[in-house]
Amino acid sequence: MKTSSKILNDPIYGFIRIPHGIIFELIEHPYFQRLRRITQLGLSYLVYPGAYHTRFQHAIGATHLMIKAVQQLRSKGHEISEKEEVAVSIAILLHDIGHGAFSHALEHSIAHEISHEDLSLLFMEKLNKEFNGHLTMAIHIFKNKYPKRFLHQLVSSQLDMDRMDYLKRDSFYSGVQEGIIGSDRIIHMLNVVEDQLVVESKGIYSIEKFLIARRIMYWQVYLHKTVLSAENMLIKLLKRAKELSQSGEELFGSSALKLFLKNNFTLNDFRKNEEVFQSFTRLDDQDVLAAIKEWQFHEDKILATLSNKIIQRKLLKIEVTDQAVSKARLLKMKNRVANYYNIDITQTDYLAFEDSISNNAYTAHKSNINILYKDGSLKDIADASDQLNISALSKPVKKHFFCYPKECKL
Amino acid sequence: MKTSSKILNDPIYGFIRIPHGIIFELIEHPYFQRLRRITQLGLSYLVYPGAYHTRFQHAIGATHLMIKAVQQLRSKGHEISEKEEVAVSIAILLHDIGHGAFSHALEHSIAHEISHEDLSLLFMEKLNKEFNGHLTMAIHIFKNKYPKRFLHQLVSSQLDMDRMDYLKRDSFYSGVQEGIIGSDRIIHMLNVVEDQLVVESKGIYSIEKFLIARRIMYWQVYLHKTVLSAENMLIKLLKRAKELSQSGEELFGSSALKLFLKNNFTLNDFRKNEEVFQSFTRLDDQDVLAAIKEWQFHEDKILATLSNKIIQRKLLKIEVTDQAVSKARLLKMKNRVANYYNIDITQTDYLAFEDSISNNAYTAHKSNINILYKDGSLKDIADASDQLNISALSKPVKKHFFCYPKECKL
Amino acid sequence: MKTSSKILNDPIYGFIRIPHGIIFELIEHPYFQRLRRITQLGLSYLVYPGAYHTRFQHAIGATHLMIKAVQQLRSKGHEISEKEEVAVSIAILLHDIGHGAFSHALEHSIAHEISHEDLSLLFMEKLNKEFNGHLTMAIHIFKNKYPKRFLHQLVSSQLDMDRMDYLKRDSFYSGVQEGIIGSDRIIHMLNVVEDQLVVESKGIYSIEKFLIARRIMYWQVYLHKTVLSAENMLIKLLKRAKELSQSGEELFGSSALKLFLKNNFTLNDFRKNEEVFQSFTRLDDQDVLAAIKEWQFHEDKILATLSNKIIQRKLLKIEVTDQAVSKARLLKMKNRVANYYNIDITQTDYLAFEDSISNNAYTAHKSNINILYKDGSLKDIADASDQLNISALSKPVKKHFFCYPKECKL
Amino acid sequence: MKTSSKILNDPIYGFIRIPHGIIFELIEHPYFQRLRRITQLGLSYLVYPGAYHTRFQHAIGATHLMIKAVQQLRSKGHEISEKEEVAVSIAILLHDIGHGAFSHALEHSIAHEISHEDLSLLFMEKLNKEFNGHLTMAIHIFKNKYPKRFLHQLVSSQLDMDRMDYLKRDSFYSGVQEGIIGSDRIIHMLNVVEDQLVVESKGIYSIEKFLIARRIMYWQVYLHKTVLSAENMLIKLLKRAKELSQSGEELFGSSALKLFLKNNFTLNDFRKNEEVFQSFTRLDDQDVLAAIKEWQFHEDKILATLSNKIIQRKLLKIEVTDQAVSKARLLKMKNRVANYYNIDITQTDYLAFEDSISNNAYTAHKSNINILYKDGSLKDIADASDQLNISALSKPVKKHFFCYPKECKL
Repeated sequence: MKTSSKILNDPIYGFIRIPHGIIFELIEHPYFQRLRRITQLGLSYLVYPGAYHTRFQHAIGATHLMIKAVQQLRSKGHEISEKEEVAVSIAILLHDIGHGAFSHALEHSIAHEISHEDLSLLFMEKLNKEFNGHLTMAIHIFKNKYPKRFLHQLVSSQLDMDRMDYLKRDSFYSGVQEGIIGSDRIIHMLNVVEDQLVVESKGIYSIEKFLIARRIMYWQVYLHKTVLSAENMLIKLLKRAKELSQSGEELFGSSALKLFLKNNFTLNDFRKNEEVFQSFTRLDDQDVLAAIKEWQFHEDKILATLSNKIIQRKLLKIEVTDQAVSKARLLKMKNRVANYYNIDITQTDYLAFEDSISNNAYTAHKSNINILYKDGSLKDIADASDQLNISALSKPVKKHFFCYPKECKL
Repeated sequence: MKTSSKILNDPIYGFIRIPHGIIFELIEHPYFQRLRRITQLGLSYLVYPGAYHTRFQHAIGATHLMIKAVQQLRSKGHEISEKEEVAVSIAILLHDIGHGAFSHALEHSIAHEISHEDLSLLFMEKLNKEFNGHLTMAIHIFKNKYPKRFLHQLVSSQLDMDRMDYLKRDSFYSGVQEGIIGSDRIIHMLNVVEDQLVVESKGIYSIEKFLIARRIMYWQVYLHKTVLSAENMLIKLLKRAKELSQSGEELFGSSALKLFLKNNFTLNDFRKNEEVFQSFTRLDDQDVLAAIKEWQFHEDKILATLSNKIIQRKLLKIEVTDQAVSKARLLKMKNRVANYYNIDITQTDYLAFEDSISNNAYTAHKSNINILYKDGSLKDIADASDQLNISALSKPVKKHFFCYPKECKL
Repeated sequence: MKTSSKILNDPIYGFIRIPHGIIFELIEHPYFQRLRRITQLGLSYLVYPGAYHTRFQHAIGATHLMIKAVQQLRSKGHEISEKEEVAVSIAILLHDIGHGAFSHALEHSIAHEISHEDLSLLFMEKLNKEFNGHLTMAIHIFKNKYPKRFLHQLVSSQLDMDRMDYLKRDSFYSGVQEGIIGSDRIIHMLNVVEDQLVVESKGIYSIEKFLIARRIMYWQVYLHKTVLSAENMLIKLLKRAKELSQSGEELFGSSALKLFLKNNFTLNDFRKNEEVFQSFTRLDDQDVLAAIKEWQFHEDKILATLSNKIIQRKLLKIEVTDQAVSKARLLKMKNRVANYYNIDITQTDYLAFEDSISNNAYTAHKSNINILYKDGSLKDIADASDQLNISALSKPVKKHFFCYPKECKL
Repeated sequence: MKTSSKILNDPIYGFIRIPHGIIFELIEHPYFQRLRRITQLGLSYLVYPGAYHTRFQHAIGATHLMIKAVQQLRSKGHEISEKEEVAVSIAILLHDIGHGAFSHALEHSIAHEISHEDLSLLFMEKLNKEFNGHLTMAIHIFKNKYPKRFLHQLVSSQLDMDRMDYLKRDSFYSGVQEGIIGSDRIIHMLNVVEDQLVVESKGIYSIEKFLIARRIMYWQVYLHKTVLSAENMLIKLLKRAKELSQSGEELFGSSALKLFLKNNFTLNDFRKNEEVFQSFTRLDDQDVLAAIKEWQFHEDKILATLSNKIIQRKLLKIEVTDQAVSKARLLKMKNRVANYYNIDITQTDYLAFEDSISNNAYTAHKSNINILYKDGSLKDIADASDQLNISALSKPVKKHFFCYPKECKL
């Protein structure tokens, strides 16, 4: 890294030093600047009013941690060249660049069946051309094709810098202090054994707390029931907008948004059709929210109702349960909704629906976390932890949810 | 306050307890929910990438501090009735509700010559009707017409809860740690003497640090040169958009935004014309930013250039100096701009311009801060501070700035 | 509580407000001032160089939390009278007043077989006389003889204010950030059902993290192996000093220390013999440490060696294992020690010894933590936590340890 | 620095990494371990109950900052060799090693007229012999005899690492949050111009806040009136003990303490007489406090009274004023004291006395702070700060104080 650098203020880390050179240039690129307009946690701010932080900050924060992790591993005798440091930093900086506005909602509606990982890779390839191949090593690391596998693990694994930053950042901004993790302490305890990232035994408690914190963040924030309701309303809303657009209705919206409402693009379209790709790079949270505000006054009752409920924060009521709602109750509700809103029962799925979610905090033995003992031996954290039943954390928990308008409550 | 309450997570205060009843209902009102979509610091996030916090959070934070201040003053024997507590809490909750999107830019362009204070009062009056007169006492306090003057000072003075929250919050989110103030400690030291808010002598150092911190925030954040450039570009951009709209050009934008671009409304229009008022309540940052993104591709060169520069963060270069730029240099620059962008010199003021700003951290002897000694005597902080020259802080500092496109640098 | 009050600075809570009146007078009493000279964590500062905080701070911190808890419960509609508030505050303020210097070491050596709880009660009774019976209700609460049982639980239970403060304080000062708990958040979630302290369901994750943090503090701090070694060395050292004193040797020391070295007092002696009690109130860490420093130069080899090792921080090597050390190995070690130090093998137990420790973070179903659901139902946290195996935390973990001089390592 | 290292937990910095090698060995040395038993702020804990931190922690903290400062300056292109890094780290680690128990009190009583700087140098020279000359470069830096002068400035100047740590640490532990400084941010802004340490212009506000914070710490903590009273009582007490000892009285105390009470040693005695030096290395806060506790029961009324007042925290009343107390009032007070305590008026100076203190936060133009502008120019902070009157901070403020027993108040 060059000594010349730019300093950014970050509420979490204080100062972040961005080395000049390609990393700085990538941050300045419009593709990356676009992340300033995409919130990290979608509509979670409807529940946690502090959670307006963006993917821009997260990507830079994760890069900051990456540089620290590289220094740490070097200080323990692991060779990481200057070029590798830049490459692994680029890989983490761009790991989420393919995220669209309200990413998860979009993946289920607008950019249907296209994963953000695929899109991130596509962005990196486009940038690699612009930067004359200087991202090639970063792409290899990202795709886990680079010989030093632990570099990929720093970008994507149970202990990657992505998680280290997002757990810390999301808990910080949401104010859910139970989710705060000691990323600094975990990074201090990282080491490499046989090309695998491991944690020194002294750090076992930090890892335990990290896994607990992650689980807490899932249930308190990422899968918070009100957030679930809002996100699913957004999915339904965009689905409706798409349906109307494709049936010839002219909806208010930016040209980029309209393009994606009118068409169903595949990953191949993104790759081959430059207009599609460029439009995607111009699409962010503001396009979606500005449109929704206007749609409140659209004559389509479903579009207007969902839009209004999101903007005024009159969210659908949600019930989260261990068992799915009975078909009878769902049908009864759909009838009430049809009646109340005076819409056809076939269209009530926009306002009354059920689905399920699941989560497990730790996936043992697959992409696991190994603890390194002073005698050089390794143990999976699930076996190493003498009292806490880590394996309990690895059982996926499945929950069902059922959303419907408060005014139709049975 | 009722015992029943809702708890909000706040990154700064941890938990904020919102008492049920009218305060909670006001927060739920669409007029207030709209503040979720207006950032507290406008475009400052272009410099401080963490500064995305909203006016919604700030208003709630200030209300939280107000409740603490009331408890504190009560514990020192000053009588504040239940009703007064609710009223002063409402006054602070709604003190900024009249702010528009990118407030300062808007005041200079869209809602020309209409202060946000006047608009806040208008909002309160409208809400007072809806809430059957329950905001009357709050409005009296806000307008300083209520007999207990110190209640107004808690809402608006050198030591008001507005400042206590915004200095803390802005420094927290911008990461400018030098601006962090001990609001908790200052509130502990508040007292009332002869209906005036004063600070007990033990708190003198906290006040000194508060004044220093405020000055730091002015120069580091509020008047940061890059922020100045961005905000002035936005003013110019909106001015251009208005000009084009009023000459018959149809610009992309929400119906609310278009209404304000096409017309020049006075405060009276806001009062008398419900459509104007309602449109204003629907206008927020997202309308403006979504439009700017689209305007990047407009055929008007000035509109497109300014839009693109803001979105891609290619801001005008800015020079901040003690003396104004010479007329000769300004003219020379305008010629270069006219030449470079192939526009008429009469129109170069959108891209090359100068102006001035000023600030003073403490206004002594006018709306001053009084220190209360144990013997009951009072002293202005400027006289009380034995070493720090507080009076130096009260001299306004005036700076000139000059903005122009980097590519035209002389 | 009276409104007049004294403000203390506390690194953890910022300001602590001590209401004037009996609480303030108790703090000023020499019996309580003595806690300034007794560290909370004994010799742990040999491992955690920040851990010099005293029992004085802890007792005041716990009282601060108690006042918050009382306010919280009152705001939820539970009646707690002014008098009860003062009483429960006194009970927590004095709950540890019976601790001696290096309490745990002392209980095993100097004040043999006398628990600090018994001594705390004795202190309270003595103070009750001085304060003309004003501590009677506090004593009833402390002894769980007061009708409102939840008040006792605030003083002593799985969720008492003692733990809330000491876990936070000990992790803060030791710098073991994994142990930091959200005491403020837990207190917000407290409620009372059928005279039992419970936690509202929203706080379940805070409780989980609290239990995990507690376990971490046990293994990282309270039972840290180096701390274990130091504390056991101190026990052995005091035992030796007592042995020498009682065989007629005149050791350096304060008169109070000498009294306890020369005699074996029972709880009854403390009760009946005012000189014994008064001497105990004058005994603190400084007596012990000042003596140990001098004993480094004593002619008794065992006393001098242990003293020197503690002062110079040349601690005995310690091995912590699941199985006890074999008798053969222990005997072999004792022989080496006898040889190395030229002492009789019967005396090697001072320098080479083994013992065991155990800990469980949560005691389910006995003194359990109940979670209160919105429908009014209660569940033990061990059953309520859907994924984390809390019951795993309730299994006691037993560890063996073996200490010996480094220089005799086999 | 070697890569192998030891990690310490520090409440302020989280982890401190101590490189193995000579720095680690110096920390393990008994001379340095002794600093564990000397509090950084003497008796300030009588006012700030959290302020029990030791010189041990401070010295290690300052060394931690030094390593960061060295890395920072290197990253800006200033060459600092491995050997110089170790040397400057040693210089800061040992800069205060000559401090005695209750240093300031001791300098005025026990080790009369011997500065702790001279003693620190003596310790370094003794250690240099033990470590075969490996401290030679560190000693040169400490004495400002090393060619690279900025290394000395890192150890001793207006911006040295000593202040960076102690201001932060003292405000942290005392809980006086107004004194907290952004040492991390200042270190980021350090640079070197013409062999002088300077601060880059971006850091000007951090420096301003640092100077303000320092002034606050002086008046709130270091010269707090109650602390002043306690420290002066300790000086008087030790003076009395010395007087009694030298008149043949046998006082309770460790052998080291007794040696210093019975004799008046010069710096030359410390240099030449190994017993004197060794005794000094064994003297710490515990010797003094353990003795004072015992002296409470001594038959000399003055010794017993002062001892009791310190231990029970019944401090002399103190008045801090701009003018010295009048001779008449002082005399009147002495008469009352003589009367009340039934002592000769010639001895009342132990219990009723006056003195003065002074402080200035910034010494401009002598050992000044230079600000480095982007164009390479330098300006003294007092001239560079455009609004804050830094020069006001450089005027020394002198205060008089007058102490006397509460019970004799006029």
